[in-house]
Amino acid sequence: MIVVMKTSCSQGEIDRVVERIQQLGLKTHVSQGVERTIIGILGQVLTNLQDTLLLLPGVEEIIPVSKPYKLASREFHPQNTIVKINDIAIGGDEIVIMAGPCAVESEEQLLATAREVKANGASILRGGAFKPSTSPYHFRGLGEVGLKMLAKAREETGMPIITEVMAPNDVELVASYADILQIGARNMQNFILLDEVGKTRKPVMLKRGLSATIQEWLLAAEYILAKGNEQLILCERGIRTFETSTRYTMDISAIPTIKRVSHLPIIADPSHATGKWYLVTPLALAAIAAGADGLIIEVHPNPDLALKDGAQSLTFEHFRQFTSQLIPIVQASGRKLATSSIKIKS
Amino acid sequence: MIVVMKTSCSQGEIDRVVERIQQLGLKTHVSQGVERTIIGILGQVLTNLQDTLLLLPGVEEIIPVSKPYKLASREFHPQNTIVKINDIAIGGDEIVIMAGPCAVESEEQLLATAREVKANGASILRGGAFKPSTSPYHFRGLGEVGLKMLAKAREETGMPIITEVMAPNDVELVASYADILQIGARNMQNFILLDEVGKTRKPVMLKRGLSATIQEWLLAAEYILAKGNEQLILCERGIRTFETSTRYTMDISAIPTIKRVSHLPIIADPSHATGKWYLVTPLALAAIAAGADGLIIEVHPNPDLALKDGAQSLTFEHFRQFTSQLIPIVQASGRKLATSSIKIKS
Amino acid sequence: MIVVMKTSCSQGEIDRVVERIQQLGLKTHVSQGVERTIIGILGQVLTNLQDTLLLLPGVEEIIPVSKPYKLASREFHPQNTIVKINDIAIGGDEIVIMAGPCAVESEEQLLATAREVKANGASILRGGAFKPSTSPYHFRGLGEVGLKMLAKAREETGMPIITEVMAPNDVELVASYADILQIGARNMQNFILLDEVGKTRKPVMLKRGLSATIQEWLLAAEYILAKGNEQLILCERGIRTFETSTRYTMDISAIPTIKRVSHLPIIADPSHATGKWYLVTPLALAAIAAGADGLIIEVHPNPDLALKDGAQSLTFEHFRQFTSQLIPIVQASGRKLATSSIKIKS
Amino acid sequence: MIVVMKTSCSQGEIDRVVERIQQLGLKTHVSQGVERTIIGILGQVLTNLQDTLLLLPGVEEIIPVSKPYKLASREFHPQNTIVKINDIAIGGDEIVIMAGPCAVESEEQLLATAREVKANGASILRGGAFKPSTSPYHFRGLGEVGLKMLAKAREETGMPIITEVMAPNDVELVASYADILQIGARNMQNFILLDEVGKTRKPVMLKRGLSATIQEWLLAAEYILAKGNEQLILCERGIRTFETSTRYTMDISAIPTIKRVSHLPIIADPSHATGKWYLVTPLALAAIAAGADGLIIEVHPNPDLALKDGAQSLTFEHFRQFTSQLIPIVQASGRKLATSSIKIKS
Repeated sequence: MIVVMKTSCSQGEIDRVVERIQQLGLKTHVSQGVERTIIGILGQVLTNLQDTLLLLPGVEEIIPVSKPYKLASREFHPQNTIVKINDIAIGGDEIVIMAGPCAVESEEQLLATAREVKANGASILRGGAFKPSTSPYHFRGLGEVGLKMLAKAREETGMPIITEVMAPNDVELVASYADILQIGARNMQNFILLDEVGKTRKPVMLKRGLSATIQEWLLAAEYILAKGNEQLILCERGIRTFETSTRYTMDISAIPTIKRVSHLPIIADPSHATGKWYLVTPLALAAIAAGADGLIIEVHPNPDLALKDGAQSLTFEHFRQFTSQLIPIVQASGRKLATSSIKIKS
Repeated sequence: MIVVMKTSCSQGEIDRVVERIQQLGLKTHVSQGVERTIIGILGQVLTNLQDTLLLLPGVEEIIPVSKPYKLASREFHPQNTIVKINDIAIGGDEIVIMAGPCAVESEEQLLATAREVKANGASILRGGAFKPSTSPYHFRGLGEVGLKMLAKAREETGMPIITEVMAPNDVELVASYADILQIGARNMQNFILLDEVGKTRKPVMLKRGLSATIQEWLLAAEYILAKGNEQLILCERGIRTFETSTRYTMDISAIPTIKRVSHLPIIADPSHATGKWYLVTPLALAAIAAGADGLIIEVHPNPDLALKDGAQSLTFEHFRQFTSQLIPIVQASGRKLATSSIKIKS
Repeated sequence: MIVVMKTSCSQGEIDRVVERIQQLGLKTHVSQGVERTIIGILGQVLTNLQDTLLLLPGVEEIIPVSKPYKLASREFHPQNTIVKINDIAIGGDEIVIMAGPCAVESEEQLLATAREVKANGASILRGGAFKPSTSPYHFRGLGEVGLKMLAKAREETGMPIITEVMAPNDVELVASYADILQIGARNMQNFILLDEVGKTRKPVMLKRGLSATIQEWLLAAEYILAKGNEQLILCERGIRTFETSTRYTMDISAIPTIKRVSHLPIIADPSHATGKWYLVTPLALAAIAAGADGLIIEVHPNPDLALKDGAQSLTFEHFRQFTSQLIPIVQASGRKLATSSIKIKS
Repeated sequence: MIVVMKTSCSQGEIDRVVERIQQLGLKTHVSQGVERTIIGILGQVLTNLQDTLLLLPGVEEIIPVSKPYKLASREFHPQNTIVKINDIAIGGDEIVIMAGPCAVESEEQLLATAREVKANGASILRGGAFKPSTSPYHFRGLGEVGLKMLAKAREETGMPIITEVMAPNDVELVASYADILQIGARNMQNFILLDEVGKTRKPVMLKRGLSATIQEWLLAAEYILAKGNEQLILCERGIRTFETSTRYTMDISAIPTIKRVSHLPIIADPSHATGKWYLVTPLALAAIAAGADGLIIEVHPNPDLALKDGAQSLTFEHFRQFTSQLIPIVQASGRKLATSSIKIKS
């Protein structure tokens, strides 16, 4: 941590800052520059020191030089983390496609979609049983009934399932059905929920908050890792910007940035990022070209009858086109699609 | 709801849209413009209709014309809501000052602060017992021990207390101590928590999410109102923008906007909005001049030793200056400071 | 244009709105909804009508239904525009690579870079002679001396040149040297400059303003098109958001969105969008996968000695790696790299 | 400037950075921290050093510690700058109201407005003769004809006039009529225009760009100051954010921030910031309460017939209400309204 003094500060003010730091058992390193004096702090710094030093007379600015996250950092964990779900490995050479409806609506809807996406490149089934909704008057999911439908679809197709958990109290229930627990964007800083999924040993997919910086996102990941759950996948799903022609702005640069600063796998959600079905495929291709480890895609048998997010759902026909465009890009990126070898119930 | 057709759409496409709408028992109104055909929908519209009509051939855009919130809307509730806490009324002529430390750290810290702010214009005591923290390694509050200290401070000073609740499971516990339940910015769309505080009959203060539009904020309010809890106060605490010289950007225009579209009281939190103690007073004055019903201010006996948010806390001396600058602005706005007539334990 | 009346409006207020519209020679279409009355306006609407109708009593909102741009719109010009520079066609099947230094610094620097990028896939040479700079104390370019160096590099390599013009007065000068006139992001709404380049018949590349919506960008394009210059290329170069780990946030979704709503070619500038050389290649690949017609890339012989933007410049070695990663993605997208058949001076 | 090395850097990498810095004639100061080595640079640093050092192996980050602007900084100019226009002083104890129509439309419109606003507290007349417009099809101002009308209104009312200049070529013309040259938000980084108004000795009002940070804004001011023109006023007019219920988000915290880091006067433009007439007064009051030195307000005799920005213009009646609400806030802030003692033509 570095303390930058004001140009007008007195020697007494410098001495007082040095003294305060040394009282905490830390060493200092004073540099007299042409315009300013700078005081470096050596040693393990307390978390609130930045705020409190700033209040001493003569101090202009405090600059942290260490990253605030450790377990999520590539500096402290150079090798890629590989998250394993049965025989599927996320974060290695393979690209994983998670696909399915936004919300589980009925057994027929879910099973038809599951079979279709599995036949066309998906290896993990997505579907929401607990759904966040901006309005209290909209569909909020089938709850445990939906979880049972997901379990049945897994049994029939052999696909692992990913589904959202919204409340700390529901973690045990959802974990008893799901193969991957999804934390939604609006819950990225629901710290109690992060603690709870951190205590499980289920793989977790943590979506980026819609106004979270990359550093805040990795600090949210740190909550889960700090509880001992290392089976963690990040998911870029668009950030809030001034542009209104898309629902959010997908931050593709987050993908190579995360790959550089963290060891965690990262997948992309072009369905929520764009909110428009006709933008899903181009953004999916872009995410893979930029280095993403996978995609999560909304597919519905009849988007114009969907209870939720129909405008961003691919039809079966669109999903087939999506896969046919995706495979050449996956190969051009030197990777291959993940496939599940698990036998389906016949 | 209005359906705008593409300039190139066919009569068949128009007919199909009309037919779909009429199948749902709704009436239509077709206008042939110079460039485009527009189809108005009359009647109570289903929530997912916007998404699904957009997928029909020939449709360019769907434009909602009703507001998605009702109970929070001034159109349906023209008179101001007044929230009563003992003899303090929020949302009427009086300006209420909530003040106290960011986090409850000790009985001494809390009581000293409570006495000081009460003597200088505050009528409600704030203090966090459950604290959200971006990093898992930072101070997260004293929990129930902190709640007990708050209760003791109330007993000693007669001031009602406001404190944050972060988890649905904690609502009952926190409500057993607090006079006002605070929902933090990061939980504005924690819909399960909104449901829970909606079920209580305690006053709630709902902070704006850091990337929430005013409409999303009022929809979050609608969750609480829809459960029957009408004792609701909104709190503007800054939104996330590109500007980095302040922690967030306080959206002062939200104050008169909320007053126009909603009947709910609104207060301002300049401490969190700016993150810098020397900006707290000017932004507090601005909020009152713009029509806010109150302020929530962080005060600490020794901000340079605070466990949390010291950089944005006022000292006792600063708080006295704050009040002396505030009172003329309150009067110039034709209002007066709220005071509590409740006797303190002597 | 649609006028949405307040729920509480009177019949007299409705009548007054209708009367005002009819006085302007326009027809109206009144729909009585369950909650609200809506008045559709038929006919060619004056530009300030939206603002002024909003002021009439009882009016809640005015909703435009026509797009404000015409010449830039695919609705009025369904075929792709192809911009031709010698034998290079931008906007068709080929992907064009523009590459070169941020700023022209010397003949040696420019020529060495030009030869290198031409040998490795670039077909157009970029280089700034007039440079915008956030600070008045930074390098602002060599001016006409730099233009002469660019002309010499064209003569030696056969590559057309693209360079920025910053002032209306300089358009004639820059156009006498350049093959493509570049309008920088900070000048996207320098309307007088747009008029001036619109009057030339030189191809123009219009960068997106750093806080411009797609609609505002197309309206800026409309200025140039309205003056009769149809040789226009758009360039996505990142928008300003709250994220600070990259210089800007590249809005990849703008690429397929522009392709859908406009006929103009669009290329991407990952160098300025990210500000970091190690993010240039992944974002370049993403832009091509999403459908961009080309890329503009900063390359410098010694980025660590560059006078401007060294941190985002590729070395020659990096540029070779870039091309080797790009070609498979170009092919996987069903396209091919543009090459120039023009003979170089031997 | 501080160089932060990677945790994994080698001694050789540290030595190479030190050597490179010393070759430039600068001194270094190396601190070995627990996790990282930090290298301080002492001496006057070249502008591109930040970019280029970042490219050396082992370097994690470069942190500047000096502010990039000097002439605009309060550190180097502690006293407030007072801008004088005749007997009006901006930046001292008085609050100045600039008011008038968005665009000059006719002599009648302008004169009627000028007389009205002068009679109700305004001391400077605003009016646009050259108007920026997002669309090429909208009204772009009367040009020199409008300037002549402004001059006539000055002659009749004694009020100095402020009007926008959009092109470097027009500076001489506009300066021959105007008392204050206004640089619009979209031209804040039109560096050639900044140079030109910097060369005049006319007072300049520099609006904040709609996505400019405070630092970028002060660097734009630095362009004008560096040319020797110290008669400079800043104007906060709203920044672009995700919120759509207002046209922009007025950043009130910019007012006390500018007052702290700069000596330049700052005024606020609530008309453009909000885009809605009914938000103008509350935001104007907020700006004054937060410490602004003045306001610029759009007023029109018949906003519902205005050629431009009618929705944000006050009527004469609204302007009178505005002043009556403003005066108590001005007094409560310990200031008074500026008035002009110059005799009007009788």
